[in-house]
Amino acid sequence: MSSPFSLGHSRDYTIETRELLGNKKVVKKLFTPGPLGVSVATKEAMLQDIGSREKEFTDTVKLIRQLLLDLANVSPEEFTTVILQGSGTYMLEAVLQSATPRDSGQVLVLVNGAYGLRIEKICERVGLPYESIPFPEGEKVDPQQLELILRNKKQQFSTVVVIHCETSTGVINPVKEIGLIVRKYCPGAAYIVDGMSSFGAIPLDFQDSQVDYLISSANKCLEGVPGFSFCIARLEHFRKCKGNARSLSFDLYDQFEEMERTGQFRFTPPTHALLAFHHALMELVEEGGMKARGRRYHANCEIIREGMKKLGFKKLVPDAEEYDGFIITSFLNPSDPNFTFDEFYQRLLFLGQVIYTGKVTQKDTFRIGNIGHLYPEDMNYLLNCIECVLKDMHVAIPVSY
Amino acid sequence: MSSPFSLGHSRDYTIETRELLGNKKVVKKLFTPGPLGVSVATKEAMLQDIGSREKEFTDTVKLIRQLLLDLANVSPEEFTTVILQGSGTYMLEAVLQSATPRDSGQVLVLVNGAYGLRIEKICERVGLPYESIPFPEGEKVDPQQLELILRNKKQQFSTVVVIHCETSTGVINPVKEIGLIVRKYCPGAAYIVDGMSSFGAIPLDFQDSQVDYLISSANKCLEGVPGFSFCIARLEHFRKCKGNARSLSFDLYDQFEEMERTGQFRFTPPTHALLAFHHALMELVEEGGMKARGRRYHANCEIIREGMKKLGFKKLVPDAEEYDGFIITSFLNPSDPNFTFDEFYQRLLFLGQVIYTGKVTQKDTFRIGNIGHLYPEDMNYLLNCIECVLKDMHVAIPVSY
Ligand SMILES: Cc1ncc(COP(=O)(O)O)c(C=O)c1O
Ligand SMILES: Cc1ncc(COP(=O)(O)O)c(C=O)c1O
Repeated sequence: MSSPFSLGHSRDYTIETRELLGNKKVVKKLFTPGPLGVSVATKEAMLQDIGSREKEFTDTVKLIRQLLLDLANVSPEEFTTVILQGSGTYMLEAVLQSATPRDSGQVLVLVNGAYGLRIEKICERVGLPYESIPFPEGEKVDPQQLELILRNKKQQFSTVVVIHCETSTGVINPVKEIGLIVRKYCPGAAYIVDGMSSFGAIPLDFQDSQVDYLISSANKCLEGVPGFSFCIARLEHFRKCKGNARSLSFDLYDQFEEMERTGQFRFTPPTHALLAFHHALMELVEEGGMKARGRRYHANCEIIREGMKKLGFKKLVPDAEEYDGFIITSFLNPSDPNFTFDEFYQRLLFLGQVIYTGKVTQKDTFRIGNIGHLYPEDMNYLLNCIECVLKDMHVAIPVSY
Repeated sequence: MSSPFSLGHSRDYTIETRELLGNKKVVKKLFTPGPLGVSVATKEAMLQDIGSREKEFTDTVKLIRQLLLDLANVSPEEFTTVILQGSGTYMLEAVLQSATPRDSGQVLVLVNGAYGLRIEKICERVGLPYESIPFPEGEKVDPQQLELILRNKKQQFSTVVVIHCETSTGVINPVKEIGLIVRKYCPGAAYIVDGMSSFGAIPLDFQDSQVDYLISSANKCLEGVPGFSFCIARLEHFRKCKGNARSLSFDLYDQFEEMERTGQFRFTPPTHALLAFHHALMELVEEGGMKARGRRYHANCEIIREGMKKLGFKKLVPDAEEYDGFIITSFLNPSDPNFTFDEFYQRLLFLGQVIYTGKVTQKDTFRIGNIGHLYPEDMNYLLNCIECVLKDMHVAIPVSY
């Protein structure tokens, strides 16, 4: 942890802050959308050397793939799990190019934030023809509007993509309603859901929602360490995808076949991250599964929003909107001349509290995540720190806009 | 560790084996080309939560990038390090498509083993026009022959790729001699060296060898854990690569620009693997650098080859060939009817000794690696175990062919 003198400003610390610093050893807590904090035991699961061809390892991978299907509440006859080395964006790229036919492919991207824009960018770079429908940032992808647009479209789509939790704003898109519209107006299209920051905490019925591909990563709500991502693919569609990929590494079907045939990865897997993930899934089961985890994150979220409201902070998404999620909250930067996000961030970091930058194009925001190894007491402690830091910065409470 | 009853065969263990099992707690050792065993301290460096935007983390990444340049003995004015999430193959794919112009690109692949073939496969899938020159498996890429061929070629190449240590056979290719020929006959071409299993133990002069891109990964001779790969790129060439990539994730130039601009990765990095790698690099410095590490691997190699020879085993690559490396050794499977690789492997695994399958197309082989957290005493202990296992399997010693 850096020294107070490296903060680059000369203001004093209030007595309260000095007490926070002095009372106990600072334990770092990440209030980020990932990489996020994970339990000590999950990290300790990495203290092992294991060969990628050892049965113990391939059995672990097999179990992980099965546990993910269980979590999604789908059967191995209808769905399969494919794991891919690298970050979540890699899996998005892999699924997009695998699920889109080489010649006749046309992707429809539903965009209401930064992660929707990322899908557009992938299509552009990979050379997948695409069209996108924009919705306002901070609002949901509106199914009614979508239906109106699709009803009048001549264009046939092979692939439709939506983000479940738009992590840039915290908005939850109505994946099920959208899925029904996709099935109606784009029959035969692959329906891809980016569930990066939702899977494991926000339930999703694969059948009702018509989802063909659900993509997520090790280090979000499943509380593993970063190193790989995964997708849960509907076999009926996925089996038609052989040969679609324009990449060796991102050839998801190849990866699937090798895993089925030998239990191994085609290329060196992040063995330690996989061991950690296996442990993290055990912890999830112990906690009571997806519902219990969702409840904890929800409780975290209520505490932080309530507390921030008391301090005068405004959220980007208005309260009580049905699309307002509980994974992460975007707050608007106050207008107090003494407030700068950078100093706010640095001072909180110094107290071991890591918050996150904004990712909204039209407004200045910052984000506080509720996911990872975080509990209500951590949220209360963070609020404590925020109040002290505001005082140290001479920002009037409640903060002004 | 599985029980003896799960070995799937009924033969007894000799007294020697029982002694090996009884004398001490079995500590697992990986004699593989990766993921390989790393020090306890390197694994313990992962027991930390760190945010990907924290200065502590971005400073660590910056230091890693600099240390890799130091290790390569090149200056930051001429070269840069780019790190990419995922396995080594990803970086090969990223460099190949970034270093090859979109329209006029033509790749030349020099193939003398499985990893050369993988480069061909990448070109095929990505749609990079390529040609390859094959050399016999288990022998080196012969510069004289190469020169003869190139002298008569009309074709201009934009990109030439060779494997430094062909990990499938253990052969070391003469990267420098090849580099001089490449410069002479393919002026302007990017010279790419896959140094996956050589970098950190086998010195390579970037200037003399004319190398433009050197690719390696975290979990080979640098003894980190798997999760990312890196390349050391000559800026003079690399600066011309903007926009070449046919992928967002594999857009190396984008990744480079973001790292230079913000110190951050574009997408979630494997924070734990990077912390481990930083520690692993410190251990390398402490050991005395690349030369000292090379000496240890060399000593490991001599012990295992000497011992295996005494047991009657034959190597794939004849002794005393100047291209015979010390990273890994391919041994031919003996013809004794009681020998099967599978049983040999399982019995050694049961003693905590993890050896590796072969990867040669024309002959039945298995491999023993000398890299990772392995010391002469580990090699001697492995030999001990091998002798006991052969006796348990009723394979006559010396083994026959
Ligand atoms: C919804 C969503 N999609 C995609 C990503 C990208 O994942 P990664 O950073 O692992 O590539 C994220 C990361 O936070 C995300 O939240
Ligand atoms: C020479 C060489 N190239 C490429 C690779 C592929 O690396 P990865 O398995 O990390 O994708 C390896 C792996 O052992 C290798 O030895």
